[in-house]
Amino acid sequence: MEESFVPFRGIKNDLEGRLKCYKQDWTSGLRAGFRILAPTTYIFFASAIPVISFGEQLERETDGILTAVQTLASTALCGIIHSIIGGQPLLILGVAEPTVIMYTFMFNFAKNRPDLGSELFLAWTAWVCVWTAILLFLLAILGACSIINRFTRLAGELFGLLIAMLFMQEAIKGLVDEFRIPERENPKLLEFQPSWRFANGMFALVLSFGLLFTALRSRKARSWRYGSGSLRGFIADYGVPLMILVWTAVSYIPAGSTPKGIPRRLFSPNPWSPGAYENWTIMKDMLKVPVLYIIGAFIPATMLAVLYYFDHSVASQLAQQKEFNLRKPPSFHYDLLLLGFLVDPTILCGLIGVPPANGVIPQSPMHTKSLATLKHQLLRNRIVETARKCMHNNASLGQVYDSMQEAYQQMQSPLVYQEPSARGLKELKESTIQMASTMGSIDAPVDETVFDVEKEIDDLLPIEVKEQRLSNLLQATMVGGCLAAMPFIKKIPTSVLWGYFAFMAIESLPGNQFWERILLLFTAPSRRYKVLEEYHATFVETVPFKTIAVFTIFQTAYLLVCFGMTWIPLAGVLFPLMIMLLVPVRQYILPKFFKGVHLQDLDAAEYEESPAVPFSLVTEGELIRTASFADDGEILDGMFTRSKGEIRRISSLKVTSATATPSKDFKGTEIESPRFSEQGYSPRVNELRAGRRSPRNVGRGPFSPRPSEVRPSNLGKSG
Amino acid sequence: MEESFVPFRGIKNDLEGRLKCYKQDWTSGLRAGFRILAPTTYIFFASAIPVISFGEQLERETDGILTAVQTLASTALCGIIHSIIGGQPLLILGVAEPTVIMYTFMFNFAKNRPDLGSELFLAWTAWVCVWTAILLFLLAILGACSIINRFTRLAGELFGLLIAMLFMQEAIKGLVDEFRIPERENPKLLEFQPSWRFANGMFALVLSFGLLFTALRSRKARSWRYGSGSLRGFIADYGVPLMILVWTAVSYIPAGSTPKGIPRRLFSPNPWSPGAYENWTIMKDMLKVPVLYIIGAFIPATMLAVLYYFDHSVASQLAQQKEFNLRKPPSFHYDLLLLGFLVDPTILCGLIGVPPANGVIPQSPMHTKSLATLKHQLLRNRIVETARKCMHNNASLGQVYDSMQEAYQQMQSPLVYQEPSARGLKELKESTIQMASTMGSIDAPVDETVFDVEKEIDDLLPIEVKEQRLSNLLQATMVGGCLAAMPFIKKIPTSVLWGYFAFMAIESLPGNQFWERILLLFTAPSRRYKVLEEYHATFVETVPFKTIAVFTIFQTAYLLVCFGMTWIPLAGVLFPLMIMLLVPVRQYILPKFFKGVHLQDLDAAEYEESPAVPFSLVTEGELIRTASFADDGEILDGMFTRSKGEIRRISSLKVTSATATPSKDFKGTEIESPRFSEQGYSPRVNELRAGRRSPRNVGRGPFSPRPSEVRPSNLGKSG
Repeated sequence: MEESFVPFRGIKNDLEGRLKCYKQDWTSGLRAGFRILAPTTYIFFASAIPVISFGEQLERETDGILTAVQTLASTALCGIIHSIIGGQPLLILGVAEPTVIMYTFMFNFAKNRPDLGSELFLAWTAWVCVWTAILLFLLAILGACSIINRFTRLAGELFGLLIAMLFMQEAIKGLVDEFRIPERENPKLLEFQPSWRFANGMFALVLSFGLLFTALRSRKARSWRYGSGSLRGFIADYGVPLMILVWTAVSYIPAGSTPKGIPRRLFSPNPWSPGAYENWTIMKDMLKVPVLYIIGAFIPATMLAVLYYFDHSVASQLAQQKEFNLRKPPSFHYDLLLLGFLVDPTILCGLIGVPPANGVIPQSPMHTKSLATLKHQLLRNRIVETARKCMHNNASLGQVYDSMQEAYQQMQSPLVYQEPSARGLKELKESTIQMASTMGSIDAPVDETVFDVEKEIDDLLPIEVKEQRLSNLLQATMVGGCLAAMPFIKKIPTSVLWGYFAFMAIESLPGNQFWERILLLFTAPSRRYKVLEEYHATFVETVPFKTIAVFTIFQTAYLLVCFGMTWIPLAGVLFPLMIMLLVPVRQYILPKFFKGVHLQDLDAAEYEESPAVPFSLVTEGELIRTASFADDGEILDGMFTRSKGEIRRISSLKVTSATATPSKDFKGTEIESPRFSEQGYSPRVNELRAGRRSPRNVGRGPFSPRPSEVRPSNLGKSG
Repeated sequence: MEESFVPFRGIKNDLEGRLKCYKQDWTSGLRAGFRILAPTTYIFFASAIPVISFGEQLERETDGILTAVQTLASTALCGIIHSIIGGQPLLILGVAEPTVIMYTFMFNFAKNRPDLGSELFLAWTAWVCVWTAILLFLLAILGACSIINRFTRLAGELFGLLIAMLFMQEAIKGLVDEFRIPERENPKLLEFQPSWRFANGMFALVLSFGLLFTALRSRKARSWRYGSGSLRGFIADYGVPLMILVWTAVSYIPAGSTPKGIPRRLFSPNPWSPGAYENWTIMKDMLKVPVLYIIGAFIPATMLAVLYYFDHSVASQLAQQKEFNLRKPPSFHYDLLLLGFLVDPTILCGLIGVPPANGVIPQSPMHTKSLATLKHQLLRNRIVETARKCMHNNASLGQVYDSMQEAYQQMQSPLVYQEPSARGLKELKESTIQMASTMGSIDAPVDETVFDVEKEIDDLLPIEVKEQRLSNLLQATMVGGCLAAMPFIKKIPTSVLWGYFAFMAIESLPGNQFWERILLLFTAPSRRYKVLEEYHATFVETVPFKTIAVFTIFQTAYLLVCFGMTWIPLAGVLFPLMIMLLVPVRQYILPKFFKGVHLQDLDAAEYEESPAVPFSLVTEGELIRTASFADDGEILDGMFTRSKGEIRRISSLKVTSATATPSKDFKGTEIESPRFSEQGYSPRVNELRAGRRSPRNVGRGPFSPRPSEVRPSNLGKSG
């Protein structure tokens, strides 16, 4: 995205770009059929549950003026509107923690003002929203988002980790509170006797850790050893919602022997109760607000504007990371403009006096990832089908590959970043043919004993994302549905909620290179290669460890400062500024302390990279028919992290400090130093590296395996 | 072991064999230095904790006539004697669950007899012991143990799994009881109010699962990514005891807010209280027992004899499985004779009126495994040291290998089953030299960047066990120490005990081929290769799946019958007979239903295999100096399971159904069918199979890796 500060140009570009693929956004979504439900439900829970508990938090903080009803309403409303007329449909909107902090702060300010008080609080916030909206308009129109690409991985990942920390904090706080008597509850109640409180706390521990473990496990289901592929696929797709149901059910097992209040469950107002919607008409009060405060509202407005501008853009950015190989263009300016409308009280949230929703982390990137899994399954099934058909006609290996390549290319448009996979197909073809020739004629018909199609495909497919609007619309609608379903939602124990918070925090970590570097600091030197194996983080070898350590420690310190700030009631809302500050720091200060090449490897600055690739329509055909839950998830998990190193090299052919890098080569691990590749193998790997007597390896030199090579490693077993 | 029923011959052979290495049993133990403490403590907990809780069980069942004091005393006493004058020092003695069942049954019989009653119960059991002892003498003298090698894996593993089930059952029962009011407790007490009982139960869940998870994790420490090698080694060695301490400490955290009885802790009598030893003088009462009962005692005696004969022998057998490559001879007959003395009341247990101890599962095999880990570290350190020294003198690759080979051979005696490793050294040498030559001169000095010694060694070393008496003596002494330490032991929460029981059950599973086959039944066909990868269970490919399934289902059904029998109060004690019954079943009935070759692969009958290898002394040198905690555990875990396939082929060069087996080849995986090797790789493995650009692989053919090959797999991450 080139930087342009010419008024409206950014918005114009965005609109043009998105309009081109608007129709396709819907059609492709619909074509995915029932399978679109997998990412939808996954994201629905990820966005509904936090919003509910933020609502509860807000209710405590604002003496019940704002509740989960409002936050849910806002999230649903904004979500639906965004998914329909929004620019980037991958972006998930929701009421975020910072907003809650902000509103809490504003309420505490308002309620102590005699001429404002809690009656006029909502009206005043309406004014704050007016100002915020105006500021957002200006920012959008003046193309402020152009500088979004100055936000390097440094800032984005730091923000991501900060959010994860906030979630984890919520989880821990919540668990601790399970042992305490909640405020605004009558301490005389039976369930608040020491014994029952202790029991409740312990029960909470069981439930939340139970959910956390099972949910994490279920995400890995595709790589399980047991159960049929479809079952494993189903669990991987719907495991998390399933686990919430399961553990909610478990929470009812001791119902007979415990008082009603144990375990504690969600406390949410009945949206159908009278007065639950008083706030929907606060507009009429807006003029009652003293002029001084109307003007004064500008101050919190600036903070909100900064917050939304940053939060919205970064969420949008993280949802469109390069490694996702998105085809469709971003839409930062237009989305910011739209956000303005959403915030603007005269139009929306203010009107009904609900806190505005904005792009949220980690839900947005989670959304993209789940859509990538979906797309991978679709692509895969199509190609496998083709190959199988080919083989049944006793085709030779050569022919099979031609057909596969064809089927694949059919679905591709010739884009720079597909080359690797294209060449991949060729390379594999050659090597396999070579292998085949050693076993016999290359024109001999092949069957799956010689050639495992599914594996080959998994190895070949690049990451692509099912970009469409349907999943976003559906999940937002479902969030709205929560208002109706509140009576059921109230059955979820709060402790399950805390477990889910921890789950979200942990789920958002893998792929975050900042996090990987922190882990690297605690990794035994002889084991560092594992980082490479798992994440293919090229920096491990291109940058001296000392440099990595210094860089990471700096980043961590910065993170802790930001985290600390969220604790300071007033300054808390300013923490986005802290992160904004990272932009100049990264651009002007860091280069003074780190070698340019190292900095590039640790934190490639997008503004030095090649422009994004233009969108061009793709015929997705009717792959859906062959839909099946396959083992792609496990490969995919790797892809996200792998492609970091990979894509970077593709999108910008700059010189890295890895002198050994063959320029024609897109793969991170290629430039491995002997040291790493020497240590870099677990025994099993070692065993296989030498090649077994499988046809695939016959051509692989005169080495007969050593006894040692039949020794399995623990890697597979651990956990 | 050849079958001979000539009186005394078996005992004579055993004594001759063991006496040859008696001195060395001690010296080698002492040479191991402080590191002998790792296996010692590991086994100490494994034998002390169950004995204590069996003691508590016995106390409940016998109205407090027998307590943990007696079981501990018996275990310690028998253990010490056995470790000193016993035949097979790898065998761990302890009071086992079956004994408890037996004694419970006898007590219930005795207490209802007016002319016997609970006063004369111990005296009567003394008579039972007399008979048992006599029977054991006869069995030992007549060489009954000769038929021990008719116990195939079928019987042994079934028994092992049965014990695991009993342990797991104890754990679950225990946890459930945490929610209940224990008998012989005053239900009026505060901690037995519903609320506190519920709290106690929940707390118990937290503690026991906490222990279970952390203990299981700690065993895998060697393969962790984080922390220094020595730290990881320490945790792997002492993690379990450590965790028991940690979770006991955790159980005190809420001490302030809970009544004294929460969580429940071990209830053990103070061994120093008067009357705790009344039973030590029951001998004088023996003549008070009516003659009729003295004779009648013969009936339970037969059961006990069968039980001990079987239990003792199988434990001893499992502790000396072929895959451990033991050097020193077994001693079934002599040990059984000794057991007779131990049981014999006029000599011991009866004299002090404690239930006799016998060889126990899973402790005995656990003992051998932990000693194998130790030995591996010692061997390894020595060779690594040699190689390093060599390299520092700028030796060439060739020289380094010569030195390593020398150092290794120094510690070896030319035995059949070491060939593979010896040839391994050679083979590796060749291949590496070949590789080296491609990089440069073979005579050029090498350093560790080119050649990772530690890995090489780990790949080369065969399994060997540190066979000595010290660890056994020490652990038995420590068990005795428990009597003194009872006040501290009572601080352990019962819930931690249940967690530990579950841990023991789970720890005993890996390597049990029966268990692996059960898992196989639930494995998706496309994933069956993983069984192969992890356990190198050759049968997976040599035997049709249907046959495996039928065989396994039969075995499972048989297991469940045995398990069911343990529930029947009277018949319960007969379940060993059920397992004895497996011998004829295996020998005469199964062959009617299964192909001979398949049966051989599924359940190699030892009596068709070559005799064990004679012992010959080994100079273990002063390896200890260089002792360091290294990453061998993880390789080792694999070795136990791997060598199953391997050793079998070595010890008996019979024809298996795998026609493809190269006779010169000792490795199970070698005979892989293309089908398996095709599917059989996770992406990472796949990646490495093709070889990277590491010097090691330069010689490995013209394959340049494909993009797909930089994709990490999930295997490493899972869990």
